[in-house]
Amino acid sequence: MRETLRRDAQTIIRRSIQAVLPDEAVRRALAHRQFPGRVVLIAAGKAAWQMARAARETLPVSRGVVITKYGYSGGPIENLTCFEAGHPVPDENSFRATQAALDAVSGLSGEDTVVFLLSGGGSALFEQPLVPGEELQDITGQLLACGADIVEINTIRKRLSAVKGGRFAQRCLPARVFSIVLSDILGDPLDMIASGPACADSSTCADAAAVAVKYHLRLSETARGLLARETPKALSNVETVITGSVRELCGAAAICCRELGYEPILLTDRLCCEAREAGSFLSSIARSHADSGKSLAFLAGGETVVHLTGNGLGGRNQEIALAAAAGIEGLSNVLVFSIGSDGTDGPTDAAGGMTDGGTLAELRERGLDIHAVLQENDAYHALKAVNGLIFTGATGTNVNDVSVVLIRA
Amino acid sequence: MRETLRRDAQTIIRRSIQAVLPDEAVRRALAHRQFPGRVVLIAAGKAAWQMARAARETLPVSRGVVITKYGYSGGPIENLTCFEAGHPVPDENSFRATQAALDAVSGLSGEDTVVFLLSGGGSALFEQPLVPGEELQDITGQLLACGADIVEINTIRKRLSAVKGGRFAQRCLPARVFSIVLSDILGDPLDMIASGPACADSSTCADAAAVAVKYHLRLSETARGLLARETPKALSNVETVITGSVRELCGAAAICCRELGYEPILLTDRLCCEAREAGSFLSSIARSHADSGKSLAFLAGGETVVHLTGNGLGGRNQEIALAAAAGIEGLSNVLVFSIGSDGTDGPTDAAGGMTDGGTLAELRERGLDIHAVLQENDAYHALKAVNGLIFTGATGTNVNDVSVVLIRA
Repeated sequence: MRETLRRDAQTIIRRSIQAVLPDEAVRRALAHRQFPGRVVLIAAGKAAWQMARAARETLPVSRGVVITKYGYSGGPIENLTCFEAGHPVPDENSFRATQAALDAVSGLSGEDTVVFLLSGGGSALFEQPLVPGEELQDITGQLLACGADIVEINTIRKRLSAVKGGRFAQRCLPARVFSIVLSDILGDPLDMIASGPACADSSTCADAAAVAVKYHLRLSETARGLLARETPKALSNVETVITGSVRELCGAAAICCRELGYEPILLTDRLCCEAREAGSFLSSIARSHADSGKSLAFLAGGETVVHLTGNGLGGRNQEIALAAAAGIEGLSNVLVFSIGSDGTDGPTDAAGGMTDGGTLAELRERGLDIHAVLQENDAYHALKAVNGLIFTGATGTNVNDVSVVLIRA
Repeated sequence: MRETLRRDAQTIIRRSIQAVLPDEAVRRALAHRQFPGRVVLIAAGKAAWQMARAARETLPVSRGVVITKYGYSGGPIENLTCFEAGHPVPDENSFRATQAALDAVSGLSGEDTVVFLLSGGGSALFEQPLVPGEELQDITGQLLACGADIVEINTIRKRLSAVKGGRFAQRCLPARVFSIVLSDILGDPLDMIASGPACADSSTCADAAAVAVKYHLRLSETARGLLARETPKALSNVETVITGSVRELCGAAAICCRELGYEPILLTDRLCCEAREAGSFLSSIARSHADSGKSLAFLAGGETVVHLTGNGLGGRNQEIALAAAAGIEGLSNVLVFSIGSDGTDGPTDAAGGMTDGGTLAELRERGLDIHAVLQENDAYHALKAVNGLIFTGATGTNVNDVSVVLIRA
């Protein structure tokens, strides 16, 4: 039973991460899609190269631009110009590459389509400031220094950019934009991902003015004028598919659970509470259903938090799994695992952790007390001692975490 | 929508508590039961009187004894002798009443049945020590002083008692015992409830000796001899029905949800994590399913904990509801409530709290910040300000808490 549960867990982990890899996500989003006219491809972000290559396999692309982080390009792709640029701070190559993208989407007709592939890091990599780079940096610095939140920062930055806040999609007109967004933000607020180059902006000039007043921003005449220029409030030429989100991670895990004979129950894809308490909650679900006579899988996706109280090594997923071990003690038909989809949980080389009904006894044999380990934030070493770490290596995607309770009839 | 949700919540609260009231629980347990021979009724605990009265309505009882706490008897019941006695510390009346119960069950035949009704407080109220009262108190005091846990204390006390650890059921032989236990202990460990007068004992004389050595117990010769006398390890004449547990509370709530048009999903009846984190977890479930187009009710029963960080007024159920308000902000079709079945949440006059998608904005209008309120453990005043307290008055039962997320299509 124990080995079966562990094997099932490994299968679910492998397949669900596979499903949210950038290339797989793009393939799924483009499946059965046909575009009339010319297709121009613009890809920006840390996964731009893989996404572009996957799109290129299925689409007849006439031209395009790929912008990714230094060292993230995999080589030339036919008909596309690949750039590497600065991240997280944009540099001259970001601006040069973005200009090339704007050139590529100009002069299109209403029959043509811009396929726009956006992934994490796109905010820095896809940028053309309307003020000098130093001024942009100064204003961002001022905002960060006074504790402005991300919404306030974006409200200002969108207006100082030629491409953010929906302006890129506006520049593509009259062509249509088919946007595929690889999301790693809980709940997928589209205009937050890379400040939404192809997304109508919900913030207004009045909002921007209010932020400027609130934080006493020092602004040039030019910047002041730009804050008063409205961003697009509607974009009729854009269609967006969000892919590779934590929701898809959970969905893929659920499908795999079903194939392995578990009835999947998706609890949430917005989990955001304290990691160890989430582990406790999940274990109480396990304990309640362990003797139901059914094979069940409860899934929770999201991103929990860890409040550091010690100096140990661990990550939020390892804390979830370890905390759950207390609640599932003695249940021979239960396993709980939790992983980060990027393969890196906290500052460790593990992707997450898994525990079962025998873990607590094994920890005790080694003189380890779960409560003390969690207090020390040292889940890594405790799980390592009981073969409870999960290793995947860097996966090439980052769509948050998924925690799964497996119960076998 | 908001009023509908609130009305549904009140209906669920009323009906689920009703279902776990002692008399209702006894009626359900005895429904369609018939006993051959004579029926002797023994009831002990804080709910003994209500349970006995309900049993008396449906059973032809020939004789019996009711033992409850001072002030808890509702008056004479035909054919039964009612005693009031000391709780939480047993007194002479406890011993006298218990002797009367032992007299009532003696001389029965194998055709006869002892209907044994047990509720919270039974441990003190139903007791006949085999050592003098002062010695029993001294030993208990020694155990408490050295930090012995409840399992260790019970292992000793069962052996110093004529009725605990299954010995009462043994005294009923050759009659059969039909035991109805009103439980308020998570997971219902039968031999823990009132130290199991009608439950085979899982602890052994060796266990008892180990506890005596571990804590250097000072024991009389008599007590030493009693620790070496084994308790019954099997009781072939006993049938037990556990009723009024948190599982039934959840089950009744689920049935009511279904009647009101919600598909109920029971998450757990063993919840035991930090209250505010449970609220956050529940709200993440709500947010994930709010736009599912289905009317859903997620239920979690158990008993969460609150770590005090402030000096405010509140209770665990109020903290669950308040913490959830942050996560369900803006969802017009969601309500979260949490209640203690005894009608008293923490040191307050409220049974719990309820919040919905509009609560956060209402709190903000009043200058209240959820995080700060929780830090101060002052959920009571915050919920009071937004009409979010639930009042039931003392309910007469105590089977832990239930938290419910209501989502209307």
